[in-house]
Amino acid sequence: MEVRVEKDFLGEVEIPDTAYYGVQSVRARDNFPITGYKTDVTLIRAIGFVKKAAAMTNAELGQLDKQLAEAIVTASEEIISGKFDDQFIVDPIQGGAGTSFNMNANEIIANRALELLGEKKGNYSIISPNSHVNMAQSTNDVFPTSVNIALIERLHHLVDKIAKLVDALKSKSEEFDNVIKMGRTHLQDAVPIRLGQEFIGYHSVIDRDLERISKSIKGLRSINLGGTSVGTGLNALPEYTEKAVDYLAELTGFELKSSESLIDATQNTDVYTEVSGMLKIHALNISKVANDLRLMSSGPTAGLGEINLPARQSGSSIMPGKVNPVICEVISQVAYQVVGNDATIGMAAENGQLELNVMKPVLVFNLLESISILENGIQIFKEYAIEGMTANIEHCRNMVERSISLVTAINPYVGYEKATEVARIAIETNRPIREICIKNGILTEKEVDTILDLNNLTSPGIAGRDKVYAGK
Amino acid sequence: MEVRVEKDFLGEVEIPDTAYYGVQSVRARDNFPITGYKTDVTLIRAIGFVKKAAAMTNAELGQLDKQLAEAIVTASEEIISGKFDDQFIVDPIQGGAGTSFNMNANEIIANRALELLGEKKGNYSIISPNSHVNMAQSTNDVFPTSVNIALIERLHHLVDKIAKLVDALKSKSEEFDNVIKMGRTHLQDAVPIRLGQEFIGYHSVIDRDLERISKSIKGLRSINLGGTSVGTGLNALPEYTEKAVDYLAELTGFELKSSESLIDATQNTDVYTEVSGMLKIHALNISKVANDLRLMSSGPTAGLGEINLPARQSGSSIMPGKVNPVICEVISQVAYQVVGNDATIGMAAENGQLELNVMKPVLVFNLLESISILENGIQIFKEYAIEGMTANIEHCRNMVERSISLVTAINPYVGYEKATEVARIAIETNRPIREICIKNGILTEKEVDTILDLNNLTSPGIAGRDKVYAGK
Amino acid sequence: MEVRVEKDFLGEVEIPDTAYYGVQSVRARDNFPITGYKTDVTLIRAIGFVKKAAAMTNAELGQLDKQLAEAIVTASEEIISGKFDDQFIVDPIQGGAGTSFNMNANEIIANRALELLGEKKGNYSIISPNSHVNMAQSTNDVFPTSVNIALIERLHHLVDKIAKLVDALKSKSEEFDNVIKMGRTHLQDAVPIRLGQEFIGYHSVIDRDLERISKSIKGLRSINLGGTSVGTGLNALPEYTEKAVDYLAELTGFELKSSESLIDATQNTDVYTEVSGMLKIHALNISKVANDLRLMSSGPTAGLGEINLPARQSGSSIMPGKVNPVICEVISQVAYQVVGNDATIGMAAENGQLELNVMKPVLVFNLLESISILENGIQIFKEYAIEGMTANIEHCRNMVERSISLVTAINPYVGYEKATEVARIAIETNRPIREICIKNGILTEKEVDTILDLNNLTSPGIAGRDKVYAGK
Amino acid sequence: MEVRVEKDFLGEVEIPDTAYYGVQSVRARDNFPITGYKTDVTLIRAIGFVKKAAAMTNAELGQLDKQLAEAIVTASEEIISGKFDDQFIVDPIQGGAGTSFNMNANEIIANRALELLGEKKGNYSIISPNSHVNMAQSTNDVFPTSVNIALIERLHHLVDKIAKLVDALKSKSEEFDNVIKMGRTHLQDAVPIRLGQEFIGYHSVIDRDLERISKSIKGLRSINLGGTSVGTGLNALPEYTEKAVDYLAELTGFELKSSESLIDATQNTDVYTEVSGMLKIHALNISKVANDLRLMSSGPTAGLGEINLPARQSGSSIMPGKVNPVICEVISQVAYQVVGNDATIGMAAENGQLELNVMKPVLVFNLLESISILENGIQIFKEYAIEGMTANIEHCRNMVERSISLVTAINPYVGYEKATEVARIAIETNRPIREICIKNGILTEKEVDTILDLNNLTSPGIAGRDKVYAGK
Repeated sequence: MEVRVEKDFLGEVEIPDTAYYGVQSVRARDNFPITGYKTDVTLIRAIGFVKKAAAMTNAELGQLDKQLAEAIVTASEEIISGKFDDQFIVDPIQGGAGTSFNMNANEIIANRALELLGEKKGNYSIISPNSHVNMAQSTNDVFPTSVNIALIERLHHLVDKIAKLVDALKSKSEEFDNVIKMGRTHLQDAVPIRLGQEFIGYHSVIDRDLERISKSIKGLRSINLGGTSVGTGLNALPEYTEKAVDYLAELTGFELKSSESLIDATQNTDVYTEVSGMLKIHALNISKVANDLRLMSSGPTAGLGEINLPARQSGSSIMPGKVNPVICEVISQVAYQVVGNDATIGMAAENGQLELNVMKPVLVFNLLESISILENGIQIFKEYAIEGMTANIEHCRNMVERSISLVTAINPYVGYEKATEVARIAIETNRPIREICIKNGILTEKEVDTILDLNNLTSPGIAGRDKVYAGK
Repeated sequence: MEVRVEKDFLGEVEIPDTAYYGVQSVRARDNFPITGYKTDVTLIRAIGFVKKAAAMTNAELGQLDKQLAEAIVTASEEIISGKFDDQFIVDPIQGGAGTSFNMNANEIIANRALELLGEKKGNYSIISPNSHVNMAQSTNDVFPTSVNIALIERLHHLVDKIAKLVDALKSKSEEFDNVIKMGRTHLQDAVPIRLGQEFIGYHSVIDRDLERISKSIKGLRSINLGGTSVGTGLNALPEYTEKAVDYLAELTGFELKSSESLIDATQNTDVYTEVSGMLKIHALNISKVANDLRLMSSGPTAGLGEINLPARQSGSSIMPGKVNPVICEVISQVAYQVVGNDATIGMAAENGQLELNVMKPVLVFNLLESISILENGIQIFKEYAIEGMTANIEHCRNMVERSISLVTAINPYVGYEKATEVARIAIETNRPIREICIKNGILTEKEVDTILDLNNLTSPGIAGRDKVYAGK
Repeated sequence: MEVRVEKDFLGEVEIPDTAYYGVQSVRARDNFPITGYKTDVTLIRAIGFVKKAAAMTNAELGQLDKQLAEAIVTASEEIISGKFDDQFIVDPIQGGAGTSFNMNANEIIANRALELLGEKKGNYSIISPNSHVNMAQSTNDVFPTSVNIALIERLHHLVDKIAKLVDALKSKSEEFDNVIKMGRTHLQDAVPIRLGQEFIGYHSVIDRDLERISKSIKGLRSINLGGTSVGTGLNALPEYTEKAVDYLAELTGFELKSSESLIDATQNTDVYTEVSGMLKIHALNISKVANDLRLMSSGPTAGLGEINLPARQSGSSIMPGKVNPVICEVISQVAYQVVGNDATIGMAAENGQLELNVMKPVLVFNLLESISILENGIQIFKEYAIEGMTANIEHCRNMVERSISLVTAINPYVGYEKATEVARIAIETNRPIREICIKNGILTEKEVDTILDLNNLTSPGIAGRDKVYAGK
Repeated sequence: MEVRVEKDFLGEVEIPDTAYYGVQSVRARDNFPITGYKTDVTLIRAIGFVKKAAAMTNAELGQLDKQLAEAIVTASEEIISGKFDDQFIVDPIQGGAGTSFNMNANEIIANRALELLGEKKGNYSIISPNSHVNMAQSTNDVFPTSVNIALIERLHHLVDKIAKLVDALKSKSEEFDNVIKMGRTHLQDAVPIRLGQEFIGYHSVIDRDLERISKSIKGLRSINLGGTSVGTGLNALPEYTEKAVDYLAELTGFELKSSESLIDATQNTDVYTEVSGMLKIHALNISKVANDLRLMSSGPTAGLGEINLPARQSGSSIMPGKVNPVICEVISQVAYQVVGNDATIGMAAENGQLELNVMKPVLVFNLLESISILENGIQIFKEYAIEGMTANIEHCRNMVERSISLVTAINPYVGYEKATEVARIAIETNRPIREICIKNGILTEKEVDTILDLNNLTSPGIAGRDKVYAGK
């Protein structure tokens, strides 16, 4: 293997000559052999945009030689295209607050730019990863800016997926609008409800999540590019910030703007904890829906058996014919992962100190993972669980008709105390409410039939009121 | 002790005749001896409002006898006034999803109303806690509605306190605008910053928290009163909901409105997890600020010693003269409590099932506690820590002047690589940057003095650029 | 109100002359108006023991005048007796790492001792809270030592309660040993199981919790008394530590010993996080059991209906006759509280710095609360839910007999693939497994009856093996 | 690409003929496109052992044809060797409680065994993944058994690494035994301590972690193999369990034993939450140590500057010469990840239902990740941070000598109140304690020099006692 030698203040390092990364990337790779995971490609794309925008600005401001700038821009475009994904060799969980990720990008770009100019890789006297590629930049503005761009891109995708899930749930709420079933509170029979009404509950809450997550994107649009080390902007020309942000907005197509205070934006991570908080809420909500579906589809014989989830795979290695609600199960697991990630993110956020939060790499890693697994999970939840779901209409109705919980409907006519007595008799004698009311002279046959008409029991009102009162 | 006997389906219970609570309260008190804490008084006030609004509506709709309604209204007003706080005897962490709290209120009101009408307490055939006081209501709409009202009231107070903290931090950012100090990243010397700039970071992030928390109130204004058991509104007249909500809005002064779907609002707890999520973010942010203040005030001799927090109490039982940053310490502890509470709230939220979340009592208890301790904490943070803080201006400046980290400013003139070499020499020889640059012929005396002028190093720009370039 | 004036370095404070607390308690009360909760009385008792042991040791070593020591010992005994509980006026969540709690105790004891000696309260030149009561002590050894003693006492109670819960679950596993029911995995019908077997699962896991929690007490027995400020023991005579620990062991009846390194014990909080971790595991386990009971008792009509939990109170303010599993619900809520407390404790633990963890007050508050609510919860779980539980034996058996999941038992005879085909036909045609096997010539009537004999399906083995093979 | 067609109850699927996985693996891969991560190789090895032991047992019991058994055993050995790692195509976060992972193994083994027998892949009538490879097994015993084996193996490695960290910290505590420095509580100067003493605190707590984690392995040694679907052992011969466990113990070299109750072991996940709880405690502890090192190494100019961590890489892309404590930073991030993982694991554990916990895949994924990143983190912590650390001995001593906190040592001679006055004067006048004591006639020069001799201040005792008292 051909190698070149690069050096830093710690000494010399041999690097395969085919490699675009350099000495600092190697140091960091060796320092942080933590997870073995790859850097998120959206984040790689994002830093490509930042490097390109910075080079364009530096050239325009006369700080960077045009020819060098062109080469850096081209190399950055190749980063964006995904061409160098495999050259990002540093673990996503790293010390140094993202410096190693930034330097990895700087080194790839410097070496590729050198190559484009016909120079040898590693000849940093011509193009330096720090002086030229990183000109007017610090990891402390480049990394958060890249992260914000990556998050915006990823959240747009997530929001699209959630919107489609909302639509699917809405369709089901319409499809199931006539399926009368037992409403349950405390897992105990309560009063009748329509399956479609339950799905209104589902799509409404997910729709609010959609709005929450969409709103949380707003904070990400304020970026701290130009703040350099601590947000004061040392070594960035005053004109640099505005121009660089404008270029970056143009390149990404996102409505980016410079943070009102670059110091604030460098020091704080609250926009990230806000996104994570919203993802957590969403996770809790989809898990609740998934849990409900698992409950309602329990059976086939010895469960509630109200709905059928699409069969997706054999459920058991030993029990023939068993089919499990595997998609709902994975949704809850995704949710728990997101909740745990939020705990990690919270601890990382709290441990910022003074001008910088050095725990950002683990924070960002978890945030990107949460978005990613939610996006993937929601897609399959919609496609593999919600869309093909069916209802066992007869069974649902039968359970309601057999239930003594219908007694609630006679409350307004006889009072809570007498209704309780009817319920007691029903439980003890296992006789239907209807019969007890009539036999004991509590209500006439006509009254009780009017009151207990299931079609009236799932809408606001005192069931059978007009008819019963009219009859009196 | 005089007693009266009340009974339910489990049998008879003796109740002190002075007591306004009844048999169901006693059952619940005995069933849930969990925390020993009292019910939050704001929540008690809130259910008073709900009961009053319901009685007024029921009377207006002709469902409830006027005289009974008047007595119920008066009793509810007394609840609101705090007169019966000690009659709420059920533990805040309770099974039954708030039924016991609701029934506790219903029983107090029924007995007080009976008393007002000259009847004996316990004579529920005249005024029944269920049939009359709870008319057209279920715990499943009364409890969340009361919770929302209590939260709105408490959050208004919290928001006021946060606003004052933001103001105090802003004042400090102005007061400290000229205090040049060492900026630190990774706890390592970075580049100079002004103490006032750091406080811009502080007030900016807390100001965003203010906005976040304020916005989270919005969701609480949608209430599910009228939904009764499962949100379908069974046993509540169609006209009831709108009227009752209007009354409640009028009585509380809050912009309440009926949820678009009462089923959704009965089933889901996302508005609560959203509030808790925002409180958690705020907690993380104030803890970060408090941690920074502890770091900067460390010393007096063997620490950073940049600022002085007001002395609030003797710091040690053994070490004379020791004064500790106790207010900042309690702020972080409040923050950790809020983070833990959010974890509890998340688990409670995820465990809703079908039409109801029976884990609401623990959820609500934690949410109210979080608001309360944040409100208390922020008040003392502002008053006892922020307002009286002073800076050790000379010491701050001295530390910057001695620092080799100023070398960053010469980067644009000599390149990162040569600047690194200067830094290396400075560390090894313990000589100032200025001297090395001059002695080694890297920059002239005039150049280096212009570049390293501290007054230029905390604002955007290449330090000394106009003057140095002009000189060239 | 008669007052006395006390002063500290911040100035003078008027204190009601009836009060035993002094100026430092007042400062702290006013500095930390956070939760409004009271200090745990076990912790108050514990510090009483520590103060008594220290005074006895100091007297014996000739450091403290005998007469003063006697008065301090008597006052400490009164603290232990609970006589001064109301004089502990500082919020449990406090800055200063417990200094204010310690000084509160020191001041009460000093003033009570003065009174016993016929002196005026506040005359600290005779008995000083610091120089005499706190002699050879620092908050940094007194507070953790007190906490350990309080925790040991409370954990002993908890362990007793858990042991009784295990016994109750064991009784039920015996009582229900013959109740054959559907085993469920994924909430889907699996293979038969006996209710008693499920309860073996319950008592086994809770029994392991018992062992875990018992073992975690061990670490608490190592105390850092004598370490003073930072564990080095400055200002405590070398003989002091051993004697004081011996006295304390004698007074409390616990096997206390001096930590191998007092510095280690002062700096670290891992024994607390270990206890909390064990409580969390226990919480998760009891919640799982409670959730199972809620599932199995769901109904009465439209649920699983396998077991009946004792009715403890009316379940609904609107639905007559409804009875909810309120005890199980409160158990899960207790569990979520404990999990959240553990999150708080973890953050507090991680934020120790150098010689001390100043976040201990919130850590200790949460730990004591967790133990307390678990103790209370487990008591009612056993008494109000487990002990009176009954099984619906016929219904359980019926569900098994109707189930197609019995098909698993024919696997060893016909292979998984053919069994799957039988299952498919059963689902599609809604015909019993038995009939399909016979009609399709897969097994003889005798074989299938032998294989599907429910009495053979809940123990290890290939059901009916001996008889079927023998028949072949 | 050559393909073969496999089918299940959902229809036909084309599979590349080179693939060893089958239709069920493909279904699962497509159903769960969640994280994109690979299955942990230790877990793959572990299931290889289980499959081998089961086949050997089935053959020995005469249930499985010898020739088939041999092929299955060989294929299992190849799984163990890592040859088929790339054939495990199902996402680690999956629905179905591990069924897909088990079936993936079953299919690979079946196809490889077929190949070994000269048969075509997919010819399951000869060797069926379910009937032969999975004979007498269910995912519900195979998966947890495999997990336990993988965890034991991984924890052994982790424990080794922790032991080495303890050793390194011990070496440092000896090396630094004479380095006198300021002890700090509340980040405020307290009393002197030796750096070596602080490291006793560090190695002691990590040593307790070592013991904790080691002990938690014990629970993993009880395995539920033979329990099949729900722990009752249906379809496994009574002799099977013991034999299979014995084989497995022999193959792995671990002291495995059959759980006392296989139902318990199938239903509960507490052994996993215990391991995770211990890992979390360890994580909190190493993060505290890492935080301390970051604090003590802060500077170089404007920080505490007490120690030097080995330089591992350039610290900044913009600030020349900056070196950051990157290893300590990554350690805290690892810790936060482990804490978050524990939160996920807790939620997963709590959501087991009845006979099975279907959330196990996410639980196991997080547990393995926690172990892995801790192992990696501890290795670099020891090697890259602890071992090369040095102390700034002079600077440490200077800070102590300048400090007014030495005043604590005169307490026993003059009382807390007078010592406080000395401290006050020292702070106000910035004069040394020594001088004030002498000038104000509080102590003689000789006394004060004896008392404040730094060599006496870091060990138990009243400093200078013998000499000062002797002099009196």
